[in-house]
Amino acid sequence: MSGAHLTDEQRLDWLRLIRSENVGPRTFRALVNQFGGASAALEALPDLARRGGRLLLKVTTRAEAEKEMAAAARLGARFVAMGEPDYPKTLQAIDTAPPLIALRGSADVLSRPCVAIVGSRNASASGLTFTERLSRQLGEAGYAVVSGLARGIDTRAHRASLDTGTVAVLAGGHDRVYPSENEPLLRAIVDGGGAVISEMPFGWEPRGRDFPRRNRIVSGLSYGVVVVEAARRSGSLITARFALEQGREVFAVPGSPLDPRAEGTNDLIRDGATLCAGVEHVTGVLEPLIASGPRLDGIEEPRHLVDAEELWDELDLPDVARTPVGPVMPEAGFIEETGEAGPGVIELLGPSPIAIDDLVRQSGLPIRTVQMTLLELEIAGRLERHGGNAVSLLAGR
Amino acid sequence: MSGAHLTDEQRLDWLRLIRSENVGPRTFRALVNQFGGASAALEALPDLARRGGRLLLKVTTRAEAEKEMAAAARLGARFVAMGEPDYPKTLQAIDTAPPLIALRGSADVLSRPCVAIVGSRNASASGLTFTERLSRQLGEAGYAVVSGLARGIDTRAHRASLDTGTVAVLAGGHDRVYPSENEPLLRAIVDGGGAVISEMPFGWEPRGRDFPRRNRIVSGLSYGVVVVEAARRSGSLITARFALEQGREVFAVPGSPLDPRAEGTNDLIRDGATLCAGVEHVTGVLEPLIASGPRLDGIEEPRHLVDAEELWDELDLPDVARTPVGPVMPEAGFIEETGEAGPGVIELLGPSPIAIDDLVRQSGLPIRTVQMTLLELEIAGRLERHGGNAVSLLAGR
Repeated sequence: MSGAHLTDEQRLDWLRLIRSENVGPRTFRALVNQFGGASAALEALPDLARRGGRLLLKVTTRAEAEKEMAAAARLGARFVAMGEPDYPKTLQAIDTAPPLIALRGSADVLSRPCVAIVGSRNASASGLTFTERLSRQLGEAGYAVVSGLARGIDTRAHRASLDTGTVAVLAGGHDRVYPSENEPLLRAIVDGGGAVISEMPFGWEPRGRDFPRRNRIVSGLSYGVVVVEAARRSGSLITARFALEQGREVFAVPGSPLDPRAEGTNDLIRDGATLCAGVEHVTGVLEPLIASGPRLDGIEEPRHLVDAEELWDELDLPDVARTPVGPVMPEAGFIEETGEAGPGVIELLGPSPIAIDDLVRQSGLPIRTVQMTLLELEIAGRLERHGGNAVSLLAGR
Repeated sequence: MSGAHLTDEQRLDWLRLIRSENVGPRTFRALVNQFGGASAALEALPDLARRGGRLLLKVTTRAEAEKEMAAAARLGARFVAMGEPDYPKTLQAIDTAPPLIALRGSADVLSRPCVAIVGSRNASASGLTFTERLSRQLGEAGYAVVSGLARGIDTRAHRASLDTGTVAVLAGGHDRVYPSENEPLLRAIVDGGGAVISEMPFGWEPRGRDFPRRNRIVSGLSYGVVVVEAARRSGSLITARFALEQGREVFAVPGSPLDPRAEGTNDLIRDGATLCAGVEHVTGVLEPLIASGPRLDGIEEPRHLVDAEELWDELDLPDVARTPVGPVMPEAGFIEETGEAGPGVIELLGPSPIAIDDLVRQSGLPIRTVQMTLLELEIAGRLERHGGNAVSLLAGR
């Protein structure tokens, strides 16, 4: 196995930082890049927020993080950090990889090549039958099957791959399983050598916008996503979109044009997804990718680290996300408009995205200063990051 | 309208020539190219056959051709020759265009842009419903719907486009409608402004191999072919293959992987056919083609011909077919091995295809001599033409 382990102290700092207000995966990355570690970033947070125009920022305390660690331990879950050996390499490759994932069950299944199978909750009988066949065949072919534990297609996909290896990704905390009717299935996954993953805090009740957010992890874990049945504007299509943005393969199972549950999948095929009518259509595309796949292997070089936090540098991640990936961890809160952000930068910002390069050029300020100002606004909840290294001011804040 | 008309005498000669033994569309073309007209080719036939190694060749007599003309007239059918104004320009563009088609009904519908809709005989209810909707919508969009009058999808396609314009292509003679249960539908097509077409002789009972042969006309008439439901190795897939070889668009309607009737269409989509889940998927592709479509318009230049047979030159057709297109008109018969074919050429021929250019080079003979020898063997039933201007000797003859 490659990578290094965080110390208990570092893991606690990582958890505190990612659980703090206005810190999502991308902000976490920017903070660690800027301050050289989670501990230093935590120390800087209140001042960053104040200079970004916000007097009160909720920074997760050591006691709160310890409490969540204890809750995780009671459920048999543990936190795995990006860059650690058990952190899935495919997930690590995405722009908004969660710095920490809470894992229940076996990490071994995550080291196998993963394929996601997703689809409608109100699936047809034939959609369910096809899902079952495909999941079993993918499992027999050595793949782990990833899904979202939802009713319908997801549930069938997990069930059919219980014996061969399956991974469920939750939209809420490990202690808030949704739908609750799938708690027995979840236990079967954990007990049967599978894995259950969440990036959300223990005690977090999943809300509507948490599901699309979760879907980026479903696709991020996987070499490819198979959409079995999907109406237009369904969550499964969001997973497919994430897969495309993450450079993963998208497969769609066709259906009659008269069946609304096939509208989404037929659209996907018209848009370039690979038509999947059998397991060979998936394995035929993925096998060569897995065999070569340098894009996902670039971070697997084994190397012993004296300071475990250096593994962050080893990951060689971009400073900011290249593409916008769904909703960021929502952190609403009171904002005071004290407006102490660095001179020049905030005046150049507006609701339309502007490239950071242009900000640097037009402000005449050093790039490090500009980035610090952006981080301040971000922590204050006033900045949004977009693709193409662009940023905009959040309207009405 | 462009093109010129054959005289009655010339039309009779064309009919005699295409109805003579071992003369299919490609041989017809080679003969007219070689002898400058159907009349001269007819005179040359017996000698060609003898020199090709065959003593007895059935050449259709004037009386026989007149008899077929009369039979056609009784049914209200007339013969339209390639190059004449009523001959469909799209059909004329294919390598194995029939020199003559017998037409019942209106020629006007053939001047409209055509789309073929084909599919299984034992179609599903949803396949039939989709066919009906698509046919009606294509008709409303100004397209004529072409099909093969078979049970299932074909029948539904014709019925739904009766009011807007439909074209049926028969595999047998006009007086041998198959299936006979569709005779009322056929009459409705003829009476309702549609067209029924056949290249086969009056009195010809369609056999198994006549259906794939007919399918090249279904696709040849059309800018695109929509396959609604098709099992693997079904006749509809043959039509799709012809469409590809003829440079026409192929559309396929998707279906559940668990439905054997969708196996063929799903395969087509995987092979690059356009997924069709609605009429806009067809019209969106075809409209630009029809608007520009120079490939099909190259032969439409209006020009008055003193000798109507000169229209043959105007068509600017290749000497031989560029691609092999299905079974040629079967004409079994007695062959005597007198072997009087030109020296050198026949010795160079074998069961493996060889390019005519190589034959010319290796024999050291003039190209015209080589082509005449090949024609002799062809008329004698001993030669097969392949794509890439290649030929082979027929085994066992």
